[in-house]
Amino acid sequence: MAACTEFSLIENYFNRQSTLRNDVRLGIGDDAAVLQLSPNEQLVVTTDTLVEGVHFPSDTSPFDIGYKLMAVNLSDLAAMGAEPRWASLALTLPNTNQDWLEQFSAGLFELAGKYTVQLIGGDTTQGPLTLSLTLHGVVQAEQFLSRGGAQVGDAIVVSGQLGDAGLALQKVFTNEKTEPELLSRLNRPTPRVELGRSLVGFANACVDISDGLIADLGHVLTASRSTNALGADLLLEHLPTSDSVKMVTETGDWSLPLAAGDDYELCFTITEAKLKQLIINELPVTRIGTVTDKLGIRCLLENGKQIDDDWRSYEHFSSSKQTGELR
Amino acid sequence: MAACTEFSLIENYFNRQSTLRNDVRLGIGDDAAVLQLSPNEQLVVTTDTLVEGVHFPSDTSPFDIGYKLMAVNLSDLAAMGAEPRWASLALTLPNTNQDWLEQFSAGLFELAGKYTVQLIGGDTTQGPLTLSLTLHGVVQAEQFLSRGGAQVGDAIVVSGQLGDAGLALQKVFTNEKTEPELLSRLNRPTPRVELGRSLVGFANACVDISDGLIADLGHVLTASRSTNALGADLLLEHLPTSDSVKMVTETGDWSLPLAAGDDYELCFTITEAKLKQLIINELPVTRIGTVTDKLGIRCLLENGKQIDDDWRSYEHFSSSKQTGELR
Repeated sequence: MAACTEFSLIENYFNRQSTLRNDVRLGIGDDAAVLQLSPNEQLVVTTDTLVEGVHFPSDTSPFDIGYKLMAVNLSDLAAMGAEPRWASLALTLPNTNQDWLEQFSAGLFELAGKYTVQLIGGDTTQGPLTLSLTLHGVVQAEQFLSRGGAQVGDAIVVSGQLGDAGLALQKVFTNEKTEPELLSRLNRPTPRVELGRSLVGFANACVDISDGLIADLGHVLTASRSTNALGADLLLEHLPTSDSVKMVTETGDWSLPLAAGDDYELCFTITEAKLKQLIINELPVTRIGTVTDKLGIRCLLENGKQIDDDWRSYEHFSSSKQTGELR
Repeated sequence: MAACTEFSLIENYFNRQSTLRNDVRLGIGDDAAVLQLSPNEQLVVTTDTLVEGVHFPSDTSPFDIGYKLMAVNLSDLAAMGAEPRWASLALTLPNTNQDWLEQFSAGLFELAGKYTVQLIGGDTTQGPLTLSLTLHGVVQAEQFLSRGGAQVGDAIVVSGQLGDAGLALQKVFTNEKTEPELLSRLNRPTPRVELGRSLVGFANACVDISDGLIADLGHVLTASRSTNALGADLLLEHLPTSDSVKMVTETGDWSLPLAAGDDYELCFTITEAKLKQLIINELPVTRIGTVTDKLGIRCLLENGKQIDDDWRSYEHFSSSKQTGELR
């Protein structure tokens, strides 16, 4: 449940059964689905696929592929505030390369072990390298986050720093020397599982930033819209960035933190009162804007200038780096 | 969780966490995993992948691909005796072909609707055509079937008829005219969900026949073996086959019902006493042999001749039709 360009495809062809079962609390369209089990617990299910040459360059280390496959799915559960539990792996491989499998599984299990996630099965098949993981988590009844609860006046908050993964990807593509810390932000992202769980009962809406801030915040605003328009004002200078990304944004190019994606930080909206009560250990969270009743995402500079009056241009940037219509 | 040649690969690289979580009742190695949820209910999870050119010829209709993807996963739940509920789809496509998607989703939903299975999410990505479905079902606590309960003296029973799908595949590959009913057994197999559920409390072990009778029965015998050896005597003339397959077996070639796979019938073992109590409506089930304390699967003719003293030769036949080590 990732890229925004999938949205119309899923809506058109696969979102046909929204009322088939009354135990589906949240179906297609969020970071994960929520299913009623017992009166007290709900199951949270997400699936994410990585394809060679689309989601990672062909020379990515198998360890990093395994690590990232687990990370992107954990990130979806983080965005739901769920406790991760079980994983099912669909692995399609061109051949049985023992060294590759050894490293891939080591990367997968390193991160799985950190969150007590057990691999419970799956399927291995012969074909072009494609890796798909379905991850299961659990929440107490109705104690989950979703994209659909943002309110006008909410503070917009992000975790960590934005744009590092995108900068690393640019450098990999141009064969530029990349600092190990920057590369690690691309290849071994840290899913914000603890943060997501601590946001339950505080945040009104939450999403993980896989497609880029503007695209993913756009998903939140769309999902939260009722009869009234919903938009956002973002303060560009408030975007949390590393020194490497700052070197780019200081030239006036804000595309890395706004649209590059792959950071797997959380973006959530929260009332000002609850933001004050929120205690987050260690991981910094930064307020970057406010939910408004004016359609569209406005990107403002401190001098009052607006660099772009609509976020759609960023969606275009985001799709231009994709290998086709899907991602 | 399908082909037998995956077994060593999974054992070597992915079966490392068997004691990580005590809520995993059954992990890697059966038709599906069983997870403890509430004291009363257990979640049953299976993942199966179809790859173009490996699991289906490139000219297979998109409707049939969608139908079969749902069928092979439903068949795994059938083998566990579970009630199907929710599906998550990982769809990798070379491009967005609207006609293809329309037909594929129609096939998927036709079978899903029959079993009140709701698609609750997934991921669509760009890449070579690969389709992976994770299907979730539920059983009452401990009321599931597994591969690991066969006992010496058990009757070995199969549902429906064996070898039709394999014969259809042969005809497709050799461009021979194929009767629609035979082709439908390959492209739109019927998962034996009701039968599986009615076997709970009766069968000692159960598996769905995806890799071929000998291979899948071999999985049951391996999983059921404790300190003592376990084997099977099969009576070849008792194998239930259609007239088309009989034309081949009458030449003395038993490979279609024994090893061709893709039939998605159930094979189960059951005590003679319980077999007599079992009432199955409509679908025929046929006793084909007996579980023995002699290692290996013996294939016997009524005249007392044994056509093969070991099932391994059939495993070789089975792998020879595969496109590589994986399937």
